Amino acid sequence: MKLKIILAISTLLAGFTASAESTPIDNEWRALDANKTVLLTLPHGEVVIELAPQFSPKHVEQFIKLTKSGHYDGNKFYRVIDGFVAQGGPEDGSRKDKLVPLLKMEGDFSTDEHWQFTKIQENDLFAEQTGFKDGFALAQNPSEKKAWLTHCPGVIAMARGNEPDSASSHFYIVNGQATRYLDRIMTVFGRVVYGMNNVQAITRTSVIEGDTPVAKKDYTPMISMRMMSDVPKNQQINLEVKNTEHPKFSEMITKRKKRENAFFYKKPPPVLDICQTPVLSRIVK
Amino acid sequence: MKLKIILAISTLLAGFTASAESTPIDNEWRALDANKTVLLTLPHGEVVIELAPQFSPKHVEQFIKLTKSGHYDGNKFYRVIDGFVAQGGPEDGSRKDKLVPLLKMEGDFSTDEHWQFTKIQENDLFAEQTGFKDGFALAQNPSEKKAWLTHCPGVIAMARGNEPDSASSHFYIVNGQATRYLDRIMTVFGRVVYGMNNVQAITRTSVIEGDTPVAKKDYTPMISMRMMSDVPKNQQINLEVKNTEHPKFSEMITKRKKRENAFFYKKPPPVLDICQTPVLSRIVK
Repeated sequence: MKLKIILAISTLLAGFTASAESTPIDNEWRALDANKTVLLTLPHGEVVIELAPQFSPKHVEQFIKLTKSGHYDGNKFYRVIDGFVAQGGPEDGSRKDKLVPLLKMEGDFSTDEHWQFTKIQENDLFAEQTGFKDGFALAQNPSEKKAWLTHCPGVIAMARGNEPDSASSHFYIVNGQATRYLDRIMTVFGRVVYGMNNVQAITRTSVIEGDTPVAKKDYTPMISMRMMSDVPKNQQINLEVKNTEHPKFSEMITKRKKRENAFFYKKPPPVLDICQTPVLSRIVK
Repeated sequence: MKLKIILAISTLLAGFTASAESTPIDNEWRALDANKTVLLTLPHGEVVIELAPQFSPKHVEQFIKLTKSGHYDGNKFYRVIDGFVAQGGPEDGSRKDKLVPLLKMEGDFSTDEHWQFTKIQENDLFAEQTGFKDGFALAQNPSEKKAWLTHCPGVIAMARGNEPDSASSHFYIVNGQATRYLDRIMTVFGRVVYGMNNVQAITRTSVIEGDTPVAKKDYTPMISMRMMSDVPKNQQINLEVKNTEHPKFSEMITKRKKRENAFFYKKPPPVLDICQTPVLSRIVK
């Protein structure tokens, strides 16, 4: 009996594309570009982030420049709230902090009638449409001709002050239920494709009323932040992610909405939450 | 500048009810009943779960009986998938496992026109209405006269086989984006009110293709599971949670939809995701 649920739900999570398939088609998977991939080393493990220059070019450009300069090495995650975000950056007001140029908001972008993505849902609570493009979760309002990267768990975005164009180098990774109300007013510029468990193990700096506060010295440091292309070959993590433009991905989406597995003795509504629809990664040697 | 975002977003997370308020009203908070509260001790920390006998009476009854008998002590979390669930229970097919009686599904319950909850949203992706009752997140379809506990991060529910009435003692805690497609076909019977960071630190037993598998001996054990009322007074964690029936809670909801804080230089849609609306806890001495 217990085996059944294991099979049922892991098939489910794998989006029904798991080992049962007969002929694997190579381009169901897309290799990550080491020039757009970041390796964040934490004391307890590694995290790999795929950057999204096609959607947030200026933020990615600055993030790469900062990464290459060693800006983030030794920074701390100083604002970590369970179910919300893990935020890190240089010491507030330090020389390192002040030297970083401010960025203009890239919270959404314009689309026209030719713009396409792999649509998964209409009338999501926060958008007219949701879907994927290049492995990233997006939303679109055709009525406004705007699209944007959505705040799903594992996305990386730049923190800012009250002014829209006030982001610099401080970033956060969403570690809980999608903070979709931040869509379009913060710039998402990538997503975690490996090691989300290590993001989840970052020390929470925020505790509930009455609990023991966490000492600053116990905040989780970033040992190093490196472009994967700058990491020695034998230390690189070579990843592929599901190609969200491949027909097999659309098939998976259609199946996932139907929930045909026997485990679903009663069918849930045939809808998909963009942030509960995984785009799988795998390690290739 | 960085201070601003810290203040802005923590106010936001606290639902604008934080320290700024003048006169705290006592019954804005509700003390937990130690007879309906569970202390799960993990090697790396403690987790407190509030049970929901008012919604899932038979599941809670059996869970309390099992807890009191020491059933869960030494059990392992044997199926832990990042962004999905941490599932644990006794060794499959062991005597301990087989002796547990099966439970009848309590995935939803009937409501009538007198049934009330603190509604927060209409036309959620998965339900006609969502809201809170007794601190728990629920959804309701008035057209069907049914309501149910929703699969938000931190809920505890019983695992089962393909048959609806096949749950016994194996349970899971949702550790990622709300798995709302499991609503009504699994029995949720409580929620984590303390130590979700410790749930997030449970070793993942499932790794991506190509990654190093995790040895069974490294699975996270449950050191012990105790009813809080059976824990020596000096080791109890005394918690209060926000009273979701208090007018202040409804005020918070209304404010949260409006996003009046200056940080929101452009207002997001005035909607709330039930699973991104926190019901805060605090420790009282």
